[in-house]
Amino acid sequence: MTTVAIVYHSGYGHTEALAKAVAEGVKRGGATANIIKLESAAQDFTAALDAVSAADAVIFGSPTYMGDVSVPLRAFFEASSKVWFTQGWKDKLAAGFTVGATFGGNKDHTLTSMIVLSMQHGMLWSGPGVPNAQINRNSDAGANVPNRIGSALGVVTQADNAAADVTPPEGDREFARLHGERIAKLAAKLEA
Amino acid sequence: MTTVAIVYHSGYGHTEALAKAVAEGVKRGGATANIIKLESAAQDFTAALDAVSAADAVIFGSPTYMGDVSVPLRAFFEASSKVWFTQGWKDKLAAGFTVGATFGGNKDHTLTSMIVLSMQHGMLWSGPGVPNAQINRNSDAGANVPNRIGSALGVVTQADNAAADVTPPEGDREFARLHGERIAKLAAKLEA
Amino acid sequence: MTTVAIVYHSGYGHTEALAKAVAEGVKRGGATANIIKLESAAQDFTAALDAVSAADAVIFGSPTYMGDVSVPLRAFFEASSKVWFTQGWKDKLAAGFTVGATFGGNKDHTLTSMIVLSMQHGMLWSGPGVPNAQINRNSDAGANVPNRIGSALGVVTQADNAAADVTPPEGDREFARLHGERIAKLAAKLEA
Amino acid sequence: MTTVAIVYHSGYGHTEALAKAVAEGVKRGGATANIIKLESAAQDFTAALDAVSAADAVIFGSPTYMGDVSVPLRAFFEASSKVWFTQGWKDKLAAGFTVGATFGGNKDHTLTSMIVLSMQHGMLWSGPGVPNAQINRNSDAGANVPNRIGSALGVVTQADNAAADVTPPEGDREFARLHGERIAKLAAKLEA
Repeated sequence: MTTVAIVYHSGYGHTEALAKAVAEGVKRGGATANIIKLESAAQDFTAALDAVSAADAVIFGSPTYMGDVSVPLRAFFEASSKVWFTQGWKDKLAAGFTVGATFGGNKDHTLTSMIVLSMQHGMLWSGPGVPNAQINRNSDAGANVPNRIGSALGVVTQADNAAADVTPPEGDREFARLHGERIAKLAAKLEA
Repeated sequence: MTTVAIVYHSGYGHTEALAKAVAEGVKRGGATANIIKLESAAQDFTAALDAVSAADAVIFGSPTYMGDVSVPLRAFFEASSKVWFTQGWKDKLAAGFTVGATFGGNKDHTLTSMIVLSMQHGMLWSGPGVPNAQINRNSDAGANVPNRIGSALGVVTQADNAAADVTPPEGDREFARLHGERIAKLAAKLEA
Repeated sequence: MTTVAIVYHSGYGHTEALAKAVAEGVKRGGATANIIKLESAAQDFTAALDAVSAADAVIFGSPTYMGDVSVPLRAFFEASSKVWFTQGWKDKLAAGFTVGATFGGNKDHTLTSMIVLSMQHGMLWSGPGVPNAQINRNSDAGANVPNRIGSALGVVTQADNAAADVTPPEGDREFARLHGERIAKLAAKLEA
Repeated sequence: MTTVAIVYHSGYGHTEALAKAVAEGVKRGGATANIIKLESAAQDFTAALDAVSAADAVIFGSPTYMGDVSVPLRAFFEASSKVWFTQGWKDKLAAGFTVGATFGGNKDHTLTSMIVLSMQHGMLWSGPGVPNAQINRNSDAGANVPNRIGSALGVVTQADNAAADVTPPEGDREFARLHGERIAKLAAKLEA
């Protein structure tokens, strides 16, 4: 069976809410989701690295802090150099999602950092392939529609300064589900 | 007197509306704005290149088409290689603005293309330095507040599928003015 | 049979030499290579767009001019918006190669421009997955070894100021062949 | 007197050797260099943040690990959010340098991460503005010439698998000195 590892760090629960939505999508796509939560730059990453090695695809998740991935994910990326030496993740499929307080906030840079890491490992990268929400953005924040922001590199979402049970909104969560579903199906194709 | 060149291409008038707003800001900042409109990849860029050479700073403007600068601006950038050979723009200040149909659309990549070009020329780059709009983005599109999107590399704005007299909204135009004002003042400092 | 479209622009023949090497690799990988040469920003791109639509994968090639893709490729990217509206290239595999006068020259930005375009289309991206050449770079330019520069986003090569029959060197050409071979094989897997 | 803070992390001494070269260049440019070495993601960054706040300009230094800044620098960037809230570094000049085992290795991404952070803070960014080394790169690794790699976003250098007293080579160190000198002089102009 196809397995998709979801490796994420969450500061205040919003990235975690998205990780769960991505996992729901992975299941919807017919694959098993293996959720790995990173806690700190100082932790032992062996189990997390092994989980990616055992999976057919990996989806990275991180809040965007100061325009890039958070420190635990960066530390995980750096620790992956031991896999890089043997190109142990070569030909796997990779993807990513992020969340921040604004629509922008250089979240594409966060995703680009994930793409660079994935290319170093010889993995393939897939964006969500979800059309931009059809809303009037001068007057509508688009909270109920997938891809309200118009992102292509990965799933870009936005959370207000409130608890993770109310934000990011439903449209962003469905966007995350759609991405999980897509990656599950593409991974199954690559695995065949 | 400090002179700021504004070099832009506009497909449907929205980038032009922003270029005018940037020029208003430049004047507000005490400098002269020299607006240069690019028309086509096939045009003669000599006058446009000379205008940048004569200015203390340059602000590039482009719609974001398929995630990057439009073809006339790209052609202008390529034509600037003749100035690059002599590093004729070295130490000038550079900045940029863009507009697209969504909040995202890889508009940061458009600005990064402008940054890369500016660094090749040995210019300095300045973002707008305008704080993110304080709005609830789950419910508010922020049309009346500068920097509703939360951009740092340059001025990122959004226009709906309507004429340039109604979109991008006033907040985006004031964001462009604030950027013009900032670049004018910083250019004056560098020139001193 | 798997078909890989190679869409490139070449200013002085070096990118064309690489396009031919990529095509050799595609054949080595068991697929058909459909080479499409772009000539100008003003040309009709219909045939080139159709060729990509008909292929299982696409490999973009461009010289790096002033830190980005050349104008004809940018114009082709912009023209692809008509395919983008229907997401006609969704799920295809995409990849890229570039060449410039130095080892750097912001060639990763050129490849990132290709990645952004590919993600807008909902395509997958693959780098070359070729290990860095094992050379002493303080004393050895590595002309005979694939991936002497150490690139991961795509095939980055370097050409001196000489004719395309002597530069880029053999190692760079073999790097291009290896990439063509990889994309052919991955495309066949995705197609299955 | 103009003060330039040099904030860096060094894994094996190569980045430290470059930091010292940058500091020599800063002095050559008539300014005081304040060198701040980061040790770990878990350290207290208060003194380092204060040093940047007290300086007229900052030059970031990091090895490139897996295509991006090392973890201690990323942690420092994240910790700078407390300064970001008050835009305490606004209008300072920023710049960067990096080193890795190859000519490429996505080192431009490392510098882009520094640029993104600097733009979030409303700082200005300057590349080195040093012309590409005039060497035949098919046969010459250019160890004795500044900017052998051809980098524009910042100082990109390369170190072989040897001690920091022998690599990176003299050309790379002089490139670092030239950058320090440039930033010192530009900071003095901005401060005036």
